[in-house]
Amino acid sequence: MISADPTELVEEARGGSRTALARLLTFVESGGTQHLATVALAYREPAPYVVGITGPPGAGKSTLTDQMITVVLERGFRDRDVDQVSVLCVDPSSPFTGGAILGDRIRMQGHATNGHVFIRSMATRGHLGGLSLAVPDAVRVLGAARFPLVLVETVGVGQMEVEIASAADTTIVAVNPGWGDAMQANKAGLLEVADIFVINKADRAGVRETRRDLDQMLDLGGAHEWRPPILETVATEGTGIDELWSAVVDHRTFIERGPLEERRRGRMRVELDRVLSAMVRTRVVSLAHGDDYEEQIDALLAGTTDPYRAAETLLATE
Amino acid sequence: MISADPTELVEEARGGSRTALARLLTFVESGGTQHLATVALAYREPAPYVVGITGPPGAGKSTLTDQMITVVLERGFRDRDVDQVSVLCVDPSSPFTGGAILGDRIRMQGHATNGHVFIRSMATRGHLGGLSLAVPDAVRVLGAARFPLVLVETVGVGQMEVEIASAADTTIVAVNPGWGDAMQANKAGLLEVADIFVINKADRAGVRETRRDLDQMLDLGGAHEWRPPILETVATEGTGIDELWSAVVDHRTFIERGPLEERRRGRMRVELDRVLSAMVRTRVVSLAHGDDYEEQIDALLAGTTDPYRAAETLLATE
Repeated sequence: MISADPTELVEEARGGSRTALARLLTFVESGGTQHLATVALAYREPAPYVVGITGPPGAGKSTLTDQMITVVLERGFRDRDVDQVSVLCVDPSSPFTGGAILGDRIRMQGHATNGHVFIRSMATRGHLGGLSLAVPDAVRVLGAARFPLVLVETVGVGQMEVEIASAADTTIVAVNPGWGDAMQANKAGLLEVADIFVINKADRAGVRETRRDLDQMLDLGGAHEWRPPILETVATEGTGIDELWSAVVDHRTFIERGPLEERRRGRMRVELDRVLSAMVRTRVVSLAHGDDYEEQIDALLAGTTDPYRAAETLLATE
Repeated sequence: MISADPTELVEEARGGSRTALARLLTFVESGGTQHLATVALAYREPAPYVVGITGPPGAGKSTLTDQMITVVLERGFRDRDVDQVSVLCVDPSSPFTGGAILGDRIRMQGHATNGHVFIRSMATRGHLGGLSLAVPDAVRVLGAARFPLVLVETVGVGQMEVEIASAADTTIVAVNPGWGDAMQANKAGLLEVADIFVINKADRAGVRETRRDLDQMLDLGGAHEWRPPILETVATEGTGIDELWSAVVDHRTFIERGPLEERRRGRMRVELDRVLSAMVRTRVVSLAHGDDYEEQIDALLAGTTDPYRAAETLLATE
């Protein structure tokens, strides 16, 4: 029988046990006490390198991910050989594993069964801060299990999807020719987070216009040290994937010369703020379910206090 | 020169000074330290009776309010003469006084200049919890200034508008013939909060269908002790306003036999929870701007803690 002790499970996961790893990730999703123990262990280990992939549904993100896995297993990641890659698939719109993601997982099975790839769809069952906190925790667990590289693929272009994907060291935004219509609503958001643009399905009409659109938007964004390259791929045929991976390598080289530390520090802040908010939210809920609370309500109705003093009192007494 | 001391201002407002009252309401909107002092004074006084009026833009809420003021000044409110009425106009979609509301204010000027009516458009400048907290505070200030009756008129049918209007002792939902299209999105929400329905502009076609719609929805809602009456008005001509006010009186009589206490208790809970949430939010922000916080970020990056322990530490040290 598999252990329920995070310390043992982390050891087993390091030794290559996928069952132990899966269990740890379930702890993270469920958000119980074992979650905290798991995370406490995971944060002691160095963070893996994280590549985020986002873009509208249908852009071909899963096929791109699939192809990138093949390339990275062949070529390695810069100077290092990579013999295992993990993928987190996130669909915030689905409370459980979504249909599309499930299909994509099956498509990725070729990799999944060869032992070099670990694929996990993330759902939030009870995690304190929802997916936007569960994903970074899961990333750290994968790091502790000695995965040097984690690909985080999100479905959709809503604020949360983009937020999750952009909490990466390198963020790829995948679009298709004629992308404008598909994501008009969040163009600026995507532009903000993209380190690399991929026009996938580049054998279709409209590539030139899409490239021009993206270029114009990048021009409007002003000059930066890193200008996101715009690549073209036909992921279903494996075309352009080598170049895409080279762009990821270039971007890693660029940020490791400086921006990476700042970026990770910024992400730590975001994460810590989220945990703080989630904890104080929990605290408010617990404050609102006690005798002290009812006493304050009585006092309010009797006119002997006001809501601000009542809240101060409750916050002081806990 | 007018005082800046809430205690003096409350005294002056009680004595009839509209300038003092306006100043106090500005304190409430601005949310500074004078806000807290003002509210502390206001909550010692009995709450005024609050009638909420909501419904889609264009339903004629301001004209209805205007007409109800005339009626209540003539007839009084049950056994008591009413010689002054206050109106809070709330448009959450507008950061400042909105155009529509401004126009409506001018229309109500006939009352405003006769000294019996005090009209105020509410905006949130710095109030901790935004309009949904500022309005109940303002209501208490009006109560402390000896207004026995406050009409709270909200523009729009979004969640917040309905929330604000329904934080009343009696809530009137104003619709027009053919209302369905105008507020499809929030029909259930409006049905939930309505104590009285008014089909205003009842000289137009479609009254019967609208009444039938409302009746069917009320039937679906099941049996309750109070079934919201459905009244018809033509506010621009003053038609049906007497009956509307009688319905308000009936509802007051009904809830004062029991539900009022429970309703006010429930509202107090909502308000206290909002203040608690706002205070802990403020606290998170302040926690995230100190040396302790930066130390925790350093520890996170060094791998000597995890976000949950870091948050616990910050919450414990403040």
